[in-house]
Amino acid sequence: MTTTAPATRTSSSAVAGARRFAGTVSPSSSTLTPLDATEIRLTDGFWAEKQALNADVVLRHCEDWMERIGWTGNFDRAAAGLGDPGTPWEHSGIEFVDSEVYKLLEGMAWELGREREPALQARYDALVDRVAAAQEDDGYLHTSFGRAWQRPRWSDLEWGHELYSMGHLLQAVVAAERTGASPRLVEVGRRLAEHLWSVFGPEGRVAICGHPEVEVALAELGRALDEPRWVELARLFVERRGHGLLGQIEYGSEYFQDDVPVRDADVLRGHAVRALYLAAGALDVAVETRDDELADAVRRQWEATVAARTYVTGGMGSHHQDEAFGADHELPPDRAYSETCAGIASTMLSWRLLLADGDARYADLIERTLLNVVLASPREDGRAFFYTNTLHQRTEGVEPDEDELNARALSSLRAPWFEVSCCPTNVARTLASVEQFFATRTADGVQLHQYGSYDVDTVLDDGTPVALSVTSGYPLDGRVAVTWRGDVDREVELALRVPSWADGSAVTVALPGEEAGEAQGPTIVVRRRFSAGDVVVLDLPTPAEWVRPDARIDAARGQVAVQRGPLVLALESTDLPSGTVNDVLVDTTVDPVTTPAGARVELSRSRTPAGGWPYGRSTATADSLGSVELVPYATWGNRGPSTMRVWLPVDDLEA
Amino acid sequence: MTTTAPATRTSSSAVAGARRFAGTVSPSSSTLTPLDATEIRLTDGFWAEKQALNADVVLRHCEDWMERIGWTGNFDRAAAGLGDPGTPWEHSGIEFVDSEVYKLLEGMAWELGREREPALQARYDALVDRVAAAQEDDGYLHTSFGRAWQRPRWSDLEWGHELYSMGHLLQAVVAAERTGASPRLVEVGRRLAEHLWSVFGPEGRVAICGHPEVEVALAELGRALDEPRWVELARLFVERRGHGLLGQIEYGSEYFQDDVPVRDADVLRGHAVRALYLAAGALDVAVETRDDELADAVRRQWEATVAARTYVTGGMGSHHQDEAFGADHELPPDRAYSETCAGIASTMLSWRLLLADGDARYADLIERTLLNVVLASPREDGRAFFYTNTLHQRTEGVEPDEDELNARALSSLRAPWFEVSCCPTNVARTLASVEQFFATRTADGVQLHQYGSYDVDTVLDDGTPVALSVTSGYPLDGRVAVTWRGDVDREVELALRVPSWADGSAVTVALPGEEAGEAQGPTIVVRRRFSAGDVVVLDLPTPAEWVRPDARIDAARGQVAVQRGPLVLALESTDLPSGTVNDVLVDTTVDPVTTPAGARVELSRSRTPAGGWPYGRSTATADSLGSVELVPYATWGNRGPSTMRVWLPVDDLEA
Repeated sequence: MTTTAPATRTSSSAVAGARRFAGTVSPSSSTLTPLDATEIRLTDGFWAEKQALNADVVLRHCEDWMERIGWTGNFDRAAAGLGDPGTPWEHSGIEFVDSEVYKLLEGMAWELGREREPALQARYDALVDRVAAAQEDDGYLHTSFGRAWQRPRWSDLEWGHELYSMGHLLQAVVAAERTGASPRLVEVGRRLAEHLWSVFGPEGRVAICGHPEVEVALAELGRALDEPRWVELARLFVERRGHGLLGQIEYGSEYFQDDVPVRDADVLRGHAVRALYLAAGALDVAVETRDDELADAVRRQWEATVAARTYVTGGMGSHHQDEAFGADHELPPDRAYSETCAGIASTMLSWRLLLADGDARYADLIERTLLNVVLASPREDGRAFFYTNTLHQRTEGVEPDEDELNARALSSLRAPWFEVSCCPTNVARTLASVEQFFATRTADGVQLHQYGSYDVDTVLDDGTPVALSVTSGYPLDGRVAVTWRGDVDREVELALRVPSWADGSAVTVALPGEEAGEAQGPTIVVRRRFSAGDVVVLDLPTPAEWVRPDARIDAARGQVAVQRGPLVLALESTDLPSGTVNDVLVDTTVDPVTTPAGARVELSRSRTPAGGWPYGRSTATADSLGSVELVPYATWGNRGPSTMRVWLPVDDLEA
Repeated sequence: MTTTAPATRTSSSAVAGARRFAGTVSPSSSTLTPLDATEIRLTDGFWAEKQALNADVVLRHCEDWMERIGWTGNFDRAAAGLGDPGTPWEHSGIEFVDSEVYKLLEGMAWELGREREPALQARYDALVDRVAAAQEDDGYLHTSFGRAWQRPRWSDLEWGHELYSMGHLLQAVVAAERTGASPRLVEVGRRLAEHLWSVFGPEGRVAICGHPEVEVALAELGRALDEPRWVELARLFVERRGHGLLGQIEYGSEYFQDDVPVRDADVLRGHAVRALYLAAGALDVAVETRDDELADAVRRQWEATVAARTYVTGGMGSHHQDEAFGADHELPPDRAYSETCAGIASTMLSWRLLLADGDARYADLIERTLLNVVLASPREDGRAFFYTNTLHQRTEGVEPDEDELNARALSSLRAPWFEVSCCPTNVARTLASVEQFFATRTADGVQLHQYGSYDVDTVLDDGTPVALSVTSGYPLDGRVAVTWRGDVDREVELALRVPSWADGSAVTVALPGEEAGEAQGPTIVVRRRFSAGDVVVLDLPTPAEWVRPDARIDAARGQVAVQRGPLVLALESTDLPSGTVNDVLVDTTVDPVTTPAGARVELSRSRTPAGGWPYGRSTATADSLGSVELVPYATWGNRGPSTMRVWLPVDDLEA
């Protein structure tokens, strides 16, 4: 691995001993310290393959699509028209497609931070130049607003997504700064931030954007550039929210979280991605301003949301209509929206809370969400994506168009690109930096939160170097070996998360030179003076197990899911002789049988009752289907059109 | 009762022996013949009170609202601008508000047909004059299209609702013609129909409207005026559909039934109201053109829709997003859309099928839908309405604004008016003519389909008069007495429907001078020479009974509903000490206890499991809530904000 720090990094650190300009999130204070982007590297196996697919295929896929359909070209046309804002040119795509180009730039930067591949750097630089060329003299940068023939700047804060798009530019700027990928883009971001300060700062207009995003971006920009004004602007946007500044819309002001101030709210609500981006930004602001009340509000909202508004996959968002959280326990499998972007936003929020508090539950949800929502989005070949992640696909739906823009949720197959295509680029930037979620450090040692095969090479605050290799067949195989690659000249702590799904199983840990012994969660802390070659082995059995829903989740009542370690499994009609998952019943008196890639369960199908009216005094009888394979949920939909379900109705019919 | 025929009726009948210009639907041939609007009259009790509330309150409510918010005024402004189409005036409301005025006119006309109340006639005439004044020279009439400052005529067939609105005008014209309420409106309709013939007729543009409605209206107009051209135009619109004439939209062409030709489709799909209006119009066309294939297609679609896409209330439409039917068995109680207008459209379709085939199942669905969907919409005082009819209200929601326009589905309380306010006027026209659904005649006698208190005075084809009075405490009391008010000089048949919900109960029928004996459904036919004073008593016990869902309806799995005769009951939090219906469980080992207005069941509540993650290896335990009252579903939401549920989770938790 490379340990060369990018040019801008060493010179910009303001806090002695802390290499702050690290990866995606770098709070000025925290319980756990994130690793520098060069201090952790996926080595091989599951996660390295996902990241390689992203680098080799997904980034290019996004780039090519946006080039072909003119979204990138919007910047060229905007740049060409800078001297003549009165003459119309054709704008491609909806009003927030700028943001997709920015998320691509962010993903490219994280890749460049890992390995400065010249061809990628050249593509990235060219794209940066095209974006930069479209920036106006006063720093404003958006291709859909402000020209004489367009709507005026800031004229549609409810739906215009202006600040939202700019927020994604600023997140790309953070990546450019921290990886040293593009000083030019950093300059673009600084000028844009100055502009936003003049328009919306303490002396400016008291307004907010209908789609939060600029908050989390500005907070991190402030950290990355060590310029507190941007944190302050983020704070203003967070504090202004919840006072009805935005106009009335059909879905009510909770749709864009303008119903209740962030610090007063008890649960996430409304549009899921908006709510989660806002909460992430609010926590950043709370951490940087030492605002414990605000931080507690975000913690409280996370707790309530996880307890009653989260799918077993970790997915969030129960409504198609307004892409929103529903009420507590309103979690329909078949109308799950569970947008890929909401899964990503959820990991962003949980990661910030994990850094702040160190509570393993945040890492549990990150694991669940990465493996069962975020990774469900890309097709195996990286060239198509789920926008929504239903837990029950009742019909095969329409075949997506491989060459044109697609609607969001009509098919059992992933689509290459969408009219609203936030998810593919969001997957791209997330996979490009996913190892950031895996480990942290403190003054006392390192903490491993996510498992797979990766190397950690870091230095504790007192200069103690820590070098270790993690190897695991995770997520199907729960054996995790941690091998120390160097002597440590003092006692340090190695903290290993025991996932909540393994709670109650026969979890064991084997210390160097010792027999394996039983271990309890949520965290195993091994404190010792490690030597090169020391191996700690955590063994998390991953047998297939039934999962039952809270009695208040009506839509999953009388049904069970099957989990295999951290993986939620699914029944896909591809594996069923009967061709549909819609009438199956599962026999829970026979335990699921663990298989190499999933599990097998005993299924039957209900018989259609006589007469046409589907309500009556008795229930139907069932016919056996035998033993049927379940596959990891994230892999479904890769074998042609199908129907699919996660929750399996329990066979309790009268024979 | 009045038996004076309106002026236009007797002169316009073309078929000897059949008084065709009757009520809402009058096919030129059918198994059952609808009664003339003057041949049946609600006398007292449940239904008479509903109709009186409609006449006294609802019609006026609609009139006042549309006056105040300028929807009626659109016609005045359009009329004033007829000579100057280039000068803009302010159009109030969305683009299809004309249709609300037309539905009000239709409802008023049916009231006038029953009793020519001078004050109502004056209000009606004034409204007709204002509408008529806005008609353009070529017959076109729409306040939202065609002026220089508006979108051109027919420029947005997907979303513009032009033909939809005109269809409602033509339905008002049918009512005006059949009741003799307004020759002027009939003339307006004839000119409009001529215009549509020139634009969309055999020599015209091959196009359809995104929202079906004009089909069912044109077919009935053709019947009412005895002018087959309008049936032919309806036929053209029906046949053109399903060939992708409309543009692509996000929801796919099934949204407006342009995916599959009507005669090829197997189930109703897409936007529920559109699908049902279209099916009703298609059946009318099939009947008038003797197109058995088309009629069979509609029958098949009804069967499949009732078997798998209908709520236990009779409600249709599972999606908020696109107001659409979902997939088979996708029937979430908490996201039930079950639009009031879809319930009305469903009764329109079932009534046409009942007339065509005579099958009691169509009357069963009409009963269920009228009592549990249509009547659920208006508030007890007739001044507020549900637009959607959820089966599970999880939160009390926002309090509707009593003075302003409301969104569609945010509250447990009914709202006085909506931005899209199709439902109140649809309720108004339906209640004004609801007795039409109750009885029919054939050459052999009369058939009673719906129960309540009403008089029938009709004449069979051979001149035999039939006069009878039906009295019943329906729907809570299932005893129905039919008293003959005159001697009949030959054997005739009295047919009594035995509702499917009573199937298997101890249904009895007592013939004149005989003991009551057991009877079987779906229809009891009593054939004899009835004398004045003869009484036939049908007794349909209405004890509270458990209803269980088909095993494939996942969202109702492990739950039971309670029915009391034709009434679906609901648990409302108003009746619960615990204040929420979201955590209740019902003890099905104790049968429900019938009460005067509903039933009582034994409830408990689930305890919140420990830990924040709502999925795990075990289920929660329960605390008893004792015996709790259930109320008829249609009456919920009349006692202040509440939560409510129809399906009650069965308590099968491990203690």
